[in-house]
Amino acid sequence: MYPDSIKELIESFKYLPGIGEKTAERLAFSTLDLEEEQIEMFSSSLLDVHSKIHKCKNCNTLTDYDLCSICSDETRQNNVLCVVEDSKSVFLFEKLGMFSGKYHVLDALISPLDGINPEDIGLNKLLDRLHNESFDEIIFAFKPSIEGETTSLYIKKILDGMNIKVTRLASGVPIGADMEYVDSLTLERALRDRKVIE
Amino acid sequence: MYPDSIKELIESFKYLPGIGEKTAERLAFSTLDLEEEQIEMFSSSLLDVHSKIHKCKNCNTLTDYDLCSICSDETRQNNVLCVVEDSKSVFLFEKLGMFSGKYHVLDALISPLDGINPEDIGLNKLLDRLHNESFDEIIFAFKPSIEGETTSLYIKKILDGMNIKVTRLASGVPIGADMEYVDSLTLERALRDRKVIE
Repeated sequence: MYPDSIKELIESFKYLPGIGEKTAERLAFSTLDLEEEQIEMFSSSLLDVHSKIHKCKNCNTLTDYDLCSICSDETRQNNVLCVVEDSKSVFLFEKLGMFSGKYHVLDALISPLDGINPEDIGLNKLLDRLHNESFDEIIFAFKPSIEGETTSLYIKKILDGMNIKVTRLASGVPIGADMEYVDSLTLERALRDRKVIE
Repeated sequence: MYPDSIKELIESFKYLPGIGEKTAERLAFSTLDLEEEQIEMFSSSLLDVHSKIHKCKNCNTLTDYDLCSICSDETRQNNVLCVVEDSKSVFLFEKLGMFSGKYHVLDALISPLDGINPEDIGLNKLLDRLHNESFDEIIFAFKPSIEGETTSLYIKKILDGMNIKVTRLASGVPIGADMEYVDSLTLERALRDRKVIE
């Protein structure tokens, strides 16, 4: 029904998560309105992302280079390490601009139900860094979940006796949330971690 | 903050209508999970759509060829012409599979407020076809709107005396709609065009 090239482009958009038939059709047709150079950039950046992007050899953050821009930035605090579950978290924190230390991206969070055991999360690379660099504090910035909790506790146990302060992100009621929509686990945690008003 | 190639891919997704920063980021990262060949097809189909797709020289439907697959299909009814406002409408009707006649895509609908006058909608090409081919009926299948109405009436006037039956799509209450959500114009039209139950 569609011309072949449009059909292929619709199929391509459908590879992406959350994009169904209708949206793929709409997006494919909308590319007809783009400028020649926009299309060329779109097309080549797709190839580039696949051929150039890989993990930083030091911290695992996705990068175009051997060493990512954060690891190679000597102006950053090198005594605080923020451990995250994926590169997206690094970019999210960097966007906020509230953290000036270093990062380390795990291969995954421990999740026995999904077959992901402690030996699958890339711990050795993290431990090597902790031995070679000199961090005073390590912050676990995982999503609040069983997997995040398990991973934090597991690594914390290994670090016992290493004289590194181990912290995690605060959990609690999100700013702006309607109390009635806050789930009970979050509320429980918020109550347990309540802060003195000074 | 992002590696250059990811940044460019995010920018590219943002060119598309309805895709904001967050969605563009999500989509760009999701391409990292695609197979090599999916990425190559995606990348090349973007270029192909831009370089190969153009209007059918007879009916204006977007096609890879000189003459679109509908115009070159000799098994189709060649005495009924469905006039639509864009190629998407053609593909929509073809998907339904309820119409086996020919199509003609106008350049636009008449819309004086947007500066689109009767001479801008590509009427000559349509009139040439009406003279060269022999249609018994012409169906206007525009979206129900002032522009659609104006365009229908304008062309109908020109066709007066040409011995062609001129019809338009029925307007009315959409199947499955809740009566209280049907707008008053639609309801008015549905009442005016009411049908005898036989």
